[in-house]
Amino acid sequence: MTNRMIRIKENIFKSNDGYAAEIRQQLDENHVFSINIMASPGAGKTSLIEHTITNLSKQHSIAVIDGDIATSIDADRASAAGAKAFQINTDGACHLDAKMISDKLVELDLKSVDFLIIENVGNLVCPASFKLGTHKNILIASIPEGDDKPYKYPGIYRGVDILIINKIDLLPYVPFNMDYFLTGIQALNPGVIIFKISCQTGDGLLNWFDWVDNQFSKNFVL
Amino acid sequence: MTNRMIRIKENIFKSNDGYAAEIRQQLDENHVFSINIMASPGAGKTSLIEHTITNLSKQHSIAVIDGDIATSIDADRASAAGAKAFQINTDGACHLDAKMISDKLVELDLKSVDFLIIENVGNLVCPASFKLGTHKNILIASIPEGDDKPYKYPGIYRGVDILIINKIDLLPYVPFNMDYFLTGIQALNPGVIIFKISCQTGDGLLNWFDWVDNQFSKNFVL
Repeated sequence: MTNRMIRIKENIFKSNDGYAAEIRQQLDENHVFSINIMASPGAGKTSLIEHTITNLSKQHSIAVIDGDIATSIDADRASAAGAKAFQINTDGACHLDAKMISDKLVELDLKSVDFLIIENVGNLVCPASFKLGTHKNILIASIPEGDDKPYKYPGIYRGVDILIINKIDLLPYVPFNMDYFLTGIQALNPGVIIFKISCQTGDGLLNWFDWVDNQFSKNFVL
Repeated sequence: MTNRMIRIKENIFKSNDGYAAEIRQQLDENHVFSINIMASPGAGKTSLIEHTITNLSKQHSIAVIDGDIATSIDADRASAAGAKAFQINTDGACHLDAKMISDKLVELDLKSVDFLIIENVGNLVCPASFKLGTHKNILIASIPEGDDKPYKYPGIYRGVDILIINKIDLLPYVPFNMDYFLTGIQALNPGVIIFKISCQTGDGLLNWFDWVDNQFSKNFVL
């Protein structure tokens, strides 16, 4: 990379971090707990969000911002499950950035929301570099992606607070060495909180719902 | 995007296309058939490459260039299967570009190779924008990623010559509507050649090997 390219990249990140800090402030002022969900295409982001909305929308007012290259399939699914859903079509861009979220928050009445879920573009690389101001960054890994992914995509595995291992129902049908996978996680991100789930069978989802629900009592008492 | 950003992006693509044209010329002069394999993380790029090397390395002299964010796991697997393997660690970059390939070709004695396989970084977005000068662009989709991916990542599905649908052995265990998937493909890329395979069971691989083998008789007779 040339020095000019490095300077441009640094400026982009600096500007992104500024927007992310403003977003966090807005969220905190309005007592909104927020998560940014990242994953490969097809790891189960939208399915997990659907289950989460269905299970928690009686206790919480949930809004979802869905980032996709094209279509509103994911926002439609979130809306059908019972959340206020907002689509961002990135029109080719491979990640969400904080400016896109900041623009979308104008449409969203934060006073009427207490849980904001951001579904990032399906990509294990670029979203890791752009903070969105959320309280927690979450990565979904899925069993059929293989057990070597922490080693091959260390940036995103290193930077998250929560790791959700989805599609555990497929363990009997694919080669996946859980010890090898978890050894990689341990090396990169020893403090990460891990949930093993299947959106297909429902296994493990109650633990996830409980964790989400607990965040409200922990962080948002005035 | 600002006008300045658009201009920078245009310059990057223009420079990339120049390198890609040079690469293509080098490959043609040396009678090397070449493919660029793209996919999500974990769709089966490395497994397909291993099978291809094992099956075709008696008839052809195969070289592999592996693009990854980190590690040489994929190049090590290609090397163990019997190819000359070269690793490019992109150090965080989310795709290979033609300059990276051009630099790597210096190390590779093209005169001694007749089949070059490039394994791109696992990503359904960015690699679609960077031509590498290869004769064919190939996308691997995998069943557990879900049937909505052509609709959500149209850029990469639209731009490829070959679509390989991998992990068909998992069809009984995951929700995947093949008609819906293929309707999306038909709309985006009606002429694409499709192979349905399982690298796990070996189903469908012979058709793929035959197709590869046929390319040599078609394109590279002097």
